[in-house]
Amino acid sequence: MRNNKFELNWEVGFCDSINNIPEEWIKADVPGAVQLDWAKAKNYPDYKIADNYKRLYWTEDKCWVYRSSFAIDNIDTSKKYFFISKGIDYEFEIHLNGKKIFYQEGMYRKVDIEITGFLKTDNEILVKIYPVPKVNSEVADRFQAAQSTKPAASYSWDWHPRLIPLGIWDDTFIEARNSVCLSDLVSEYILSDDLKKVEGSIKVTGNSLKNKTYELKIISPSDKEYIVAGSFNDNTFIINYEINNPELWNPIGYGRQNLYECELKVYYNGDIADRKSKRIGFRKTKLVMNEGTWDEPKTFPKTRSVPPIQLEVNNNKVFCKGSNWVMPEIFYGTITNERYKVLIDLAVDANFNIIRLWGGAIINKDFFYDYCDEKGILVWQEFPLACMDYYDSAKYLSVLESEASFIIEKIKQHPSLAFWCGGNELFNNWSGMTDQSKALRLLNKLCYEQDQNTPFISTSPLMGMGHGHYVFFDHEKNETVFDIYTKAKLTANTEFGIAAPSSVDTLQSIIPEDELWPPKSGTAWEDHHAFNSWVGDTWLSQNTIEKYYGKLNNINELADYGQTLQAIGLQFIFEELRRQRPYCSMALNWCFNDCWPSAANTSIIEYPCKPKQAYYSLKKACRPILASVRARKFVWKPDELFECDLFLLNDSLLDIKAGEMNIFIKTSESKNKVFEWKYADSEGNKNILGPTVRFNLPNNINTQFELIAEVENHPEYNSTYKFRLEQTNKENQKTLNQ
Amino acid sequence: MRNNKFELNWEVGFCDSINNIPEEWIKADVPGAVQLDWAKAKNYPDYKIADNYKRLYWTEDKCWVYRSSFAIDNIDTSKKYFFISKGIDYEFEIHLNGKKIFYQEGMYRKVDIEITGFLKTDNEILVKIYPVPKVNSEVADRFQAAQSTKPAASYSWDWHPRLIPLGIWDDTFIEARNSVCLSDLVSEYILSDDLKKVEGSIKVTGNSLKNKTYELKIISPSDKEYIVAGSFNDNTFIINYEINNPELWNPIGYGRQNLYECELKVYYNGDIADRKSKRIGFRKTKLVMNEGTWDEPKTFPKTRSVPPIQLEVNNNKVFCKGSNWVMPEIFYGTITNERYKVLIDLAVDANFNIIRLWGGAIINKDFFYDYCDEKGILVWQEFPLACMDYYDSAKYLSVLESEASFIIEKIKQHPSLAFWCGGNELFNNWSGMTDQSKALRLLNKLCYEQDQNTPFISTSPLMGMGHGHYVFFDHEKNETVFDIYTKAKLTANTEFGIAAPSSVDTLQSIIPEDELWPPKSGTAWEDHHAFNSWVGDTWLSQNTIEKYYGKLNNINELADYGQTLQAIGLQFIFEELRRQRPYCSMALNWCFNDCWPSAANTSIIEYPCKPKQAYYSLKKACRPILASVRARKFVWKPDELFECDLFLLNDSLLDIKAGEMNIFIKTSESKNKVFEWKYADSEGNKNILGPTVRFNLPNNINTQFELIAEVENHPEYNSTYKFRLEQTNKENQKTLNQ
Repeated sequence: MRNNKFELNWEVGFCDSINNIPEEWIKADVPGAVQLDWAKAKNYPDYKIADNYKRLYWTEDKCWVYRSSFAIDNIDTSKKYFFISKGIDYEFEIHLNGKKIFYQEGMYRKVDIEITGFLKTDNEILVKIYPVPKVNSEVADRFQAAQSTKPAASYSWDWHPRLIPLGIWDDTFIEARNSVCLSDLVSEYILSDDLKKVEGSIKVTGNSLKNKTYELKIISPSDKEYIVAGSFNDNTFIINYEINNPELWNPIGYGRQNLYECELKVYYNGDIADRKSKRIGFRKTKLVMNEGTWDEPKTFPKTRSVPPIQLEVNNNKVFCKGSNWVMPEIFYGTITNERYKVLIDLAVDANFNIIRLWGGAIINKDFFYDYCDEKGILVWQEFPLACMDYYDSAKYLSVLESEASFIIEKIKQHPSLAFWCGGNELFNNWSGMTDQSKALRLLNKLCYEQDQNTPFISTSPLMGMGHGHYVFFDHEKNETVFDIYTKAKLTANTEFGIAAPSSVDTLQSIIPEDELWPPKSGTAWEDHHAFNSWVGDTWLSQNTIEKYYGKLNNINELADYGQTLQAIGLQFIFEELRRQRPYCSMALNWCFNDCWPSAANTSIIEYPCKPKQAYYSLKKACRPILASVRARKFVWKPDELFECDLFLLNDSLLDIKAGEMNIFIKTSESKNKVFEWKYADSEGNKNILGPTVRFNLPNNINTQFELIAEVENHPEYNSTYKFRLEQTNKENQKTLNQ
Repeated sequence: MRNNKFELNWEVGFCDSINNIPEEWIKADVPGAVQLDWAKAKNYPDYKIADNYKRLYWTEDKCWVYRSSFAIDNIDTSKKYFFISKGIDYEFEIHLNGKKIFYQEGMYRKVDIEITGFLKTDNEILVKIYPVPKVNSEVADRFQAAQSTKPAASYSWDWHPRLIPLGIWDDTFIEARNSVCLSDLVSEYILSDDLKKVEGSIKVTGNSLKNKTYELKIISPSDKEYIVAGSFNDNTFIINYEINNPELWNPIGYGRQNLYECELKVYYNGDIADRKSKRIGFRKTKLVMNEGTWDEPKTFPKTRSVPPIQLEVNNNKVFCKGSNWVMPEIFYGTITNERYKVLIDLAVDANFNIIRLWGGAIINKDFFYDYCDEKGILVWQEFPLACMDYYDSAKYLSVLESEASFIIEKIKQHPSLAFWCGGNELFNNWSGMTDQSKALRLLNKLCYEQDQNTPFISTSPLMGMGHGHYVFFDHEKNETVFDIYTKAKLTANTEFGIAAPSSVDTLQSIIPEDELWPPKSGTAWEDHHAFNSWVGDTWLSQNTIEKYYGKLNNINELADYGQTLQAIGLQFIFEELRRQRPYCSMALNWCFNDCWPSAANTSIIEYPCKPKQAYYSLKKACRPILASVRARKFVWKPDELFECDLFLLNDSLLDIKAGEMNIFIKTSESKNKVFEWKYADSEGNKNILGPTVRFNLPNNINTQFELIAEVENHPEYNSTYKFRLEQTNKENQKTLNQ
């Protein structure tokens, strides 16, 4: 009864024209990338080390051809045969036994084509892949991606070398299906405003379904069964159902991640001819006005209020804590479910509730979304547009429409989807798109048509939201993160970061020993983003680290102090943005992970899955409830009047009972209580703003001290803050003046 | 060969249920409004006088039924009969000979239904109109319109009494058509970026067209002929054509208003079976970024740049000078082509190049757009949404979709269309809609689908644009228009206004003699908007007028000084926004005209077509080229240091040759030259910024003086500015302190 899958063995080779055939064939791993196959066959050195990645540049402009020969000994004439691929990157043709049977531009649409009529006993299938798409440009930079839906980051980014994958990058096989069979189920639903009723539908497509009977069974998390039976009147058919008092899916921290199991059986001659299952979940997401924004603007002439970016899920306001995801492998065809799992588990463990799937990276494989559904991680999904002008050509708009339509249909079925976004930083001068750009009007239209009840924003940042800053200390403006974020008044800060070096192990594995110390531009440090990736040496930021920790003597100090500074800075920003709630509604740092081993980057997790120090400070800053202290600055003088504001931050739905917070100053010598704050009862999902505290620092401290906020009976709320001391000894090489 | 129209005679009456029939029938004027018919039949006093309009309140909640009996003596069986109406307001049924044959909610979609099968020799047609649509609300205010496409202003506005028309409001008749006939031609085209090529199409619909031959002839303004012939393969058919080097339509001031005549003939058995003509024009409009806006924001965290609102037509940047149009009759069914013509001629004569068709008013009848095409007046077209939350109900969205779709199809064919806009002030707190509101996402989608090459904005103001202020002097902030607009930095100011009383004649015609002086709230003055229409007495603003001109003694002084102050203020604002070009790209005052005789309003043209003083000052401020002086304030002291900036403003495409501007001060005593500015050559469509001029005022002036800027050899560029003197005599009742 079941459909049969045939896995194929593949070879690959290259040639100069799409009408040619390679002279040499090597073994291919599918899914994967042609570059990895070639590098493996030809014993290229690891592209992740030093500047070896440059040896793959030539692969961009070749045509690559996959070949698979397969025999079907007993062609079962009661079956239909299909060639299925969930992703071929990027523009390609499929030839079977000498006939061109398919063409597509776009790496996201699933290929699902019947091949029954072309089959013989011995068969040869070719997948011919065109060279990397490039907008005419003398310079090999990201702007070559401006008319394609490939991830822009592949063309080079400040954390990604130029390495542009081509090849079969997701599951690919031949499937023999019964003549009466199901090909696809698409779930849609409307959840009533009061969350009490689901009006749902399953759109069924398949073959020879007409007049066959079906049974749809939906099982709730608490084992309630809903059964709808009937008969199909066509090969495309919509089955409607209703569920009262649905068990809702919630993001982590706001309730259970309820998922329903849904199974459809088709009967033919009394037997089950085919069956398909899928997991569905129900939730309502909205973007509503941030508190306080309707009060602006105040004076005439009056412009508009800023757009809404406060996320509500199931009518709960969610403070979004999370991070920007980049592809966890340069050659994304090799990303495994296990890798997705480990990284998403790290996000959950960091107390994050959202991941922004940034428009310069790939649209993820299915497992990613399945696992976010399970774990309660919200997904901010962007379309593949980032940091350039995807201008209005008819050809590009047509490819974008087809790809986007498929992406919407695939992802809208996941309850973890929080909202759609056109792409990254499109309304800033480095991109040059505007609200009039057709690509964005088209995406709004498609999302409206296909997924009307999920919000859509054109880009990030929208007016009132912020991207950046990306440093602990801005040398030009002489400001630290303490200054920058305390005075910022943002509805959402959806990119901010501080770079840190990777761990010593990683550095030693990618930088040749003779280049290892001191770090210099023009070496493997630069290939791995320490220099000249953003502005000057920003990602390494050795001068900023030395400003606070003195002259660095070796790679161990660099990695340790650099990671410490990142940890302190990101702790401050995450807590500060949470303190600015409810006007501010989102804190998402740039970025979560690395696509390869970087020398220095704003990531909080090194390639492949190794947390930096900042990961642990964020994890604390993102606890649902915590004591939080807004200090005025990072560097103090002995005896100086210390000033800070106290908060008890609460993003959970739990009420807080009255209690007491004690503030201590801890030096190498002692730990002394400097303040007690008795806070009153407070309702859930709301911060408690406490007093401003002032006290003189001891005059006998040196180098550093800590401020500790302890909450009585709730040690899990306690927080610790590290500060540096200004050096008074002028002879000392350390130059702390901030 | 021609189709025959049968005009109908109508009666009307009311009843309490849509299933009933009126007990009394009176004569109805079609097009018109049921209220006017009833008032006429029952000798109601003129609703435009005093508070007579209130006598019509009861009409809102009745069902109104039109009836027409007509005989068709010789039903020509070779013909098909259609009932046509270009507008029935608002929700209605059509019954013919006892059968309900049609239902519609929405006043804009044309009714075009075949009735052949229902006809007898003697016929009775009924048009049954439902009561005024109202969202449940205790208060009879505009918010009752929140789920309909009726003009919101009818429900009461600060310049419109509550009077909500119902009835047949546009041309309505029966048409006998040949069996082979054309019903509609829709023109579309793509104009290449270099403006050198039109790829056009005419979408034809009709009856029995299949296999009939046609000839499409297009004649250019310079008499070039383009002929396409062929045969239809269906009743809906698209005829494509191409025109190289098209003669473009341009807005006034930027070239000719070229229009092509287009005629389609259908042949049947060698004869012309039907023919239809239409006039078309080709232009490219864009909204591009205003100069300087890409440089913002400057610092991190970075939000987005403001959206584009610089209009380009045929690649020329147009500084939009114009006004906000409101319906020129409360009972819009009575608006004639002649009225449209007189008002549009006034706009042309005022040197305006754009009219904003504000979302609280009606979508205009066809002639309006035809005449704008002829005259080169650009049309900013809004959908019928204004100042409230048109919330996401399925029923409303469905009506909006049908109505908007028709509106787009109708107006997109006019070259005068500059851009689409979702509606008025929807993203401000008094409305409460956001970028996520489905109505606006739907409108964006429909405009994208049906008219992709014309820009769409969601509302006005967008971020960076401004609406307001609406006073000469802001008592709360102690600022005049001189302060407010000099410091504003807007990309476009698309509503600003200063109220003035109507002329004495008008005031005497609407206000009972015993209420005429002094103006008081609670009288006909208030019914006609002088009091409590916006804030307090804002539209009358007697205190502001007296602040500058001393205590007013009679209605003549009120009207004269009030209109003078409006004229001075609007002159300043129009010139100031032009001086801020190119960052600022639009100056549109609120509002152009009146819908009835108002006692005081921000209009510059009194009902029906009478210019106020401000009209003439605007006309000067909007000349394509003019000398312009930015003075610091309106009220000065004798001997004070006068300061102003000089400009030569140029919105025309003409270059300016070097020349000289002389500045004079003119008092009751003398006219003295105080400055000479020699300006250099300058290219077209660009302002020349001159020096800042400072000189001491004479010490012997009193009450007022003028500054005159004279351009040598170009008296048509000369400008005059009026100023007031601060009163030093404390005994004087005039209190000038600004």
